[in-house]
Amino acid sequence: MDVVIGLDPGLACTGWGVIAADGNRLSHVANGQVRTDAKQPLPARLVRLEEALAAVIAAHGPTEAAVEEVFLNDNPQSTLKLGQARGVVLLVAARQGIAVGEYAPRLVKKAVVGTGGADKAQVHAMVQRLLPSAKIAGADAADALAVAITHAHHLASARRVR
Amino acid sequence: MDVVIGLDPGLACTGWGVIAADGNRLSHVANGQVRTDAKQPLPARLVRLEEALAAVIAAHGPTEAAVEEVFLNDNPQSTLKLGQARGVVLLVAARQGIAVGEYAPRLVKKAVVGTGGADKAQVHAMVQRLLPSAKIAGADAADALAVAITHAHHLASARRVR
Repeated sequence: MDVVIGLDPGLACTGWGVIAADGNRLSHVANGQVRTDAKQPLPARLVRLEEALAAVIAAHGPTEAAVEEVFLNDNPQSTLKLGQARGVVLLVAARQGIAVGEYAPRLVKKAVVGTGGADKAQVHAMVQRLLPSAKIAGADAADALAVAITHAHHLASARRVR
Repeated sequence: MDVVIGLDPGLACTGWGVIAADGNRLSHVANGQVRTDAKQPLPARLVRLEEALAAVIAAHGPTEAAVEEVFLNDNPQSTLKLGQARGVVLLVAARQGIAVGEYAPRLVKKAVVGTGGADKAQVHAMVQRLLPSAKIAGADAADALAVAITHAHHLASARRVR
């Protein structure tokens, strides 16, 4: 059985979601969102993010991690902020020796909803249906669970192929 | 006496430079560059950067840290890469309880050379003049030492004002 953590990095709010995957049978373990205080200096916000995610990883012991590839937008300031948070998120996972898979946003939508053009509400609804016991903490946690589900499917297919 | 570490973050190469500052009297402690292997996955590169910088901080025990503010360019992919490395660099310093000062590139040039329009070669030459014993590891290390010098001047002025 795999324990997969999905991560949706952001400086203001990082979503995370942990699921257990036994082949194609998925179950919800935990999910949440780490918020950082915009009034704090950037380095302090990054430390807060690191500490919160390290605690999540220590509590749930994921064996696999997955994040979305970045959709680059036209605001370089936003890209820089996202990059700084994403660097910390990737570091915290990799430091524990957890391999980190990256998936394009379209692939996540396709894996969860069945079409790469699905909107956020459809993704959220389908995550809830696949993990009925989950109390989803918010939109970023839903996205994180969606990436975790994508990675679990990917692991299951990879094993079938072998 | 302050021990100041200047940092010039980059994913491929991060420059660092440590100086000791006793008021306006500066002396070189150490400098170097951390390179990461472009063939490695991003999370592994970030772990390498974290480990190398944590070792530098452990070896030299800086009490102050400084980085340049980011000059945002038009390539979002470059901005994302820089952001990811910068997030790790800021985290490693802040986690040790070291306050991190940020300085605009023009301010660094003005503090070191005397004019905000100075080019890289002028900055490098002036850093070498101010820290004659330094064997400067490369352009990124020179930039890191320049930020450290800027921060040391800033500390000295702030104390004169008090």
